[in-house]
Amino acid sequence: MYHFTALVTCLAIAFYFFTSIKAGKARATFDVKAPAISGNPDFERVFRVQMNTLEWMPIFLPSLWLFAIYISDAIAAALGVVWIIGRILYMIGYSEAAAKRGRGFATQAGAAMLPWLGALGAIAWRLIHA
Amino acid sequence: MYHFTALVTCLAIAFYFFTSIKAGKARATFDVKAPAISGNPDFERVFRVQMNTLEWMPIFLPSLWLFAIYISDAIAAALGVVWIIGRILYMIGYSEAAAKRGRGFATQAGAAMLPWLGALGAIAWRLIHA
Amino acid sequence: MYHFTALVTCLAIAFYFFTSIKAGKARATFDVKAPAISGNPDFERVFRVQMNTLEWMPIFLPSLWLFAIYISDAIAAALGVVWIIGRILYMIGYSEAAAKRGRGFATQAGAAMLPWLGALGAIAWRLIHA
Repeated sequence: MYHFTALVTCLAIAFYFFTSIKAGKARATFDVKAPAISGNPDFERVFRVQMNTLEWMPIFLPSLWLFAIYISDAIAAALGVVWIIGRILYMIGYSEAAAKRGRGFATQAGAAMLPWLGALGAIAWRLIHA
Repeated sequence: MYHFTALVTCLAIAFYFFTSIKAGKARATFDVKAPAISGNPDFERVFRVQMNTLEWMPIFLPSLWLFAIYISDAIAAALGVVWIIGRILYMIGYSEAAAKRGRGFATQAGAAMLPWLGALGAIAWRLIHA
Repeated sequence: MYHFTALVTCLAIAFYFFTSIKAGKARATFDVKAPAISGNPDFERVFRVQMNTLEWMPIFLPSLWLFAIYISDAIAAALGVVWIIGRILYMIGYSEAAAKRGRGFATQAGAAMLPWLGALGAIAWRLIHA
């Protein structure tokens, strides 16, 4: 079983859900009525935080689980925690200004690419030695 | 094996695919040419139904499967059916008017959050008692 | 174990990541500053390639894995390779003109729907004969 990775998956979903709550509230705050998703840059930045988190979910989650299965549950979970921290930094930065989203973005990108790289290496090793 | 959850996963994917077909047809009906995704509120509402369903997939599907694995295949599948029903209500409501999307949204949100909560509780219990 | 499907999953993630890199570069090339996602059709087409790939990930990946688990790892992986090829054709076509996205789209749609159909059939067969 992969309890640590399962736990971090729940936490990552919770954070992503939080970004969608913020986008919903930003609709009210900046008066951007559904179905519009543009028209006010302050809303757009909060909305883009949610969307960018969504965009990374299919990179992060499958890579995380392949890494957990092929290499280590605990290390996968640790990388998952770093990913969530990077995502929080990205959210805080981007909500202030588009130019401040770089550091958090790089952190979460690295934390998503390491499990991808590790999983790819482990899968290739298994295929070659099978 | 998790046959019921697997079946409901296929049905959820089919429904999501249906919302993307509707968005494609709405492009033609309301003459919103690719790559544009705005310009006509009637198109935008149909497009937002697809996008919002997409936005919930990474909340719903991993939560559903963690719940199935940690707790119950049959209960997970039942909650999955409620999620699809909520999504259908959301689609019907939102396609008519943005103000009519609330009930379906709340239904599907509850049906996605229950498996999340259940899975989180079961994972925490296992980690504490391991 | 499902080594071939795991490998193709990594490759699909890599391709999807590549489309997001292209969208990021198109921001600079066509001077569309974050958080905007519209305003220049050349940027919008490249951005829509990324978004459409994202839109298909929750159709493709769960269907691929259910097919691998219920039917065959090797056939799943082969269909996954066709999906990626279809996606590459779609990217090349759409980047040139919206009208040129049809062939790649149809290829990847077929390669995503076959595993869905196969998985659905196998799941139903198991439920009926269980």
